[in-house]
Amino acid sequence: MATEKYQKGIVKIKELTSSTDENPTGFMDIGEGFKDIAPDLSQYVVEFAFGDIYSRPGLDNKQKVLTTITSLVTQGKPQIGMHIKTGLSVGLTPEEIVGCIIHLIPYVGFPSVLNALKVTQEVFNELGVKVTPSEG
Amino acid sequence: MATEKYQKGIVKIKELTSSTDENPTGFMDIGEGFKDIAPDLSQYVVEFAFGDIYSRPGLDNKQKVLTTITSLVTQGKPQIGMHIKTGLSVGLTPEEIVGCIIHLIPYVGFPSVLNALKVTQEVFNELGVKVTPSEG
Amino acid sequence: MATEKYQKGIVKIKELTSSTDENPTGFMDIGEGFKDIAPDLSQYVVEFAFGDIYSRPGLDNKQKVLTTITSLVTQGKPQIGMHIKTGLSVGLTPEEIVGCIIHLIPYVGFPSVLNALKVTQEVFNELGVKVTPSEG
Amino acid sequence: MATEKYQKGIVKIKELTSSTDENPTGFMDIGEGFKDIAPDLSQYVVEFAFGDIYSRPGLDNKQKVLTTITSLVTQGKPQIGMHIKTGLSVGLTPEEIVGCIIHLIPYVGFPSVLNALKVTQEVFNELGVKVTPSEG
Amino acid sequence: MATEKYQKGIVKIKELTSSTDENPTGFMDIGEGFKDIAPDLSQYVVEFAFGDIYSRPGLDNKQKVLTTITSLVTQGKPQIGMHIKTGLSVGLTPEEIVGCIIHLIPYVGFPSVLNALKVTQEVFNELGVKVTPSEG
Amino acid sequence: MATEKYQKGIVKIKELTSSTDENPTGFMDIGEGFKDIAPDLSQYVVEFAFGDIYSRPGLDNKQKVLTTITSLVTQGKPQIGMHIKTGLSVGLTPEEIVGCIIHLIPYVGFPSVLNALKVTQEVFNELGVKVTPSEG
Repeated sequence: MATEKYQKGIVKIKELTSSTDENPTGFMDIGEGFKDIAPDLSQYVVEFAFGDIYSRPGLDNKQKVLTTITSLVTQGKPQIGMHIKTGLSVGLTPEEIVGCIIHLIPYVGFPSVLNALKVTQEVFNELGVKVTPSEG
Repeated sequence: MATEKYQKGIVKIKELTSSTDENPTGFMDIGEGFKDIAPDLSQYVVEFAFGDIYSRPGLDNKQKVLTTITSLVTQGKPQIGMHIKTGLSVGLTPEEIVGCIIHLIPYVGFPSVLNALKVTQEVFNELGVKVTPSEG
Repeated sequence: MATEKYQKGIVKIKELTSSTDENPTGFMDIGEGFKDIAPDLSQYVVEFAFGDIYSRPGLDNKQKVLTTITSLVTQGKPQIGMHIKTGLSVGLTPEEIVGCIIHLIPYVGFPSVLNALKVTQEVFNELGVKVTPSEG
Repeated sequence: MATEKYQKGIVKIKELTSSTDENPTGFMDIGEGFKDIAPDLSQYVVEFAFGDIYSRPGLDNKQKVLTTITSLVTQGKPQIGMHIKTGLSVGLTPEEIVGCIIHLIPYVGFPSVLNALKVTQEVFNELGVKVTPSEG
Repeated sequence: MATEKYQKGIVKIKELTSSTDENPTGFMDIGEGFKDIAPDLSQYVVEFAFGDIYSRPGLDNKQKVLTTITSLVTQGKPQIGMHIKTGLSVGLTPEEIVGCIIHLIPYVGFPSVLNALKVTQEVFNELGVKVTPSEG
Repeated sequence: MATEKYQKGIVKIKELTSSTDENPTGFMDIGEGFKDIAPDLSQYVVEFAFGDIYSRPGLDNKQKVLTTITSLVTQGKPQIGMHIKTGLSVGLTPEEIVGCIIHLIPYVGFPSVLNALKVTQEVFNELGVKVTPSEG
């Protein structure tokens, strides 16, 4: 019953999360937890967000996740943590992830950036990721 | 009287805008137009935004401008046009710029994206930039 | 000492929350908890928000609460939970409440919607409300 | 080459805009103006926004458009004018549209509401729509 | 037919705008332009915003207008121009108005501040107001 | 190794927080907690936010903190609590702080104000600060 676009979306999620066939959506929240109140939601997430948009050419995966993280930091959304994991999975370095958030100071101000770094730090600690200090 | 950090900021702006020594800040608005009401403003823009933040390691110039554009699209700010020019100047392809904006649909919705594409289209038309259609 | 408009506001809140004379404001937070720092606040809530605006003709109660929920989801405010209760109280079905939130995906993106559905699910669970799956 | 979901989306747009077979998308902006830079955009608008989301059960058309208008007023987006036209097309009365915007004052403040009423007034004037004063 | 609170609001507006009895609301937009679609709107503006909130003790007029300007700059609302006029009318100096906007850079970023300074400059030019450069 | 501007920023923070030489930054979060992932962050906070912007003439300290609080309430940022402490430290009365937040109702709506008053109440309780009821 899964559409072709749904299959395409699942393939993309596997690629983004380096997940296995047993748990194809990996750590990505596709809205499965809302089956009781919105059973159609995960279909929109998989088909549209991943089957259509993330599968689109134009940007590579690292650029796509950097764009996602930037928008979530700008909006102050809690989903930033999950997408930092995706960023690491597709090959963004910890320095690039932190660099992207620090780069936003002149565009969103310090409070949004400090709140985002808190989440980043928690995810890095959870995964044992270290940032290599640069010679600024 | 210009500080070392100011000089560093100007060098970075020249790099970002491919500008000449005659007009070192190129098309970048550093707040010079507000000398009558806020004469210190351009110093903050040049020293902090460009001397500190844009000069920071961690991201390359293309990533920095992509991050800037994404935040401005998310916020609906008119400065997006100027930073699309910067993007083209540092080597982002038109496809990457459009790709970044389209990628934001699942994160900000259609209206913000349509408004940003309108500005993008105007800048591309002004500069004679063409987008090569992809084989989606 | 209560003004006529205050009385009108309380009558409206009773209608919206199906509350009793013993507890006329029911589950509606009218700012009573801030009597120590802003003793006049609940007067503004009751007189203006409920005596003026919610008492205005033009929309029926179901439309008014749907409008309230939509604005709170768009802004990501925690008050959404309380207003979902109001929605159920004035006769919005669980399907209409979820339908309104899902409808916002193209206008605010997935993260805001997922965050709102989490609150919705908690309220529905607390009240034992079930959503009837539709034949999409 | 149009997918089944695209056809479903076009049917929905025709229903929402009371448009004809000659001009099936009527006054609805589906992103056709961006064919030069984002040729795939209108497909996302039609398939996802209209084929998936607007075609979803749960809310009737009047509720869907009221939800759309509310979110756009809350965000201050210029698309509100187009969706006021859609609202009138699906049977929302001018009083309901104005009622929805005025209802938002306690949730977004006066400036956003005044800006939205300006657009509303322009659309009503363009279409010759009159608001019947109520006996508040 | 005007309520006591409406009268109180008009008195406050006269005080804020230094207006005359012939034109008591002066340059303040109280929503009179929407009599055709929302005849009750100006009552809410005058009674609630000015009769209740602006008439509240706690802050002096200069602090109230500074707070208003700050919120509008943070939100990017066009009403900032009108409230800069109010600020000058209640005795805020041009340096305080510009100082407030520049102070927001670390909290909202440069683009919002640059956009607000543009409006400020236009109002200052219109009124022939000069900023005295400080010895930073 | 600390720059002159950094020193200037630290002096300003001491002034704002009435802190001691042993703990010069007092209760102000300057991003020291992110030394592991963004060791340069606290330099930007101290040099730019405090050495440049808070050290700027134009507004007095009470006005600067009022502006900061207003912007944070408008954005719904959690940093409001820390800046309420700064406000009390520079001499804002509890009535001015509450007055500023209540004043925002017509500009941001009730939910943002209620959320900010909750944080205010917690800070006031923690510090044993009392609000003197006014004769509204």
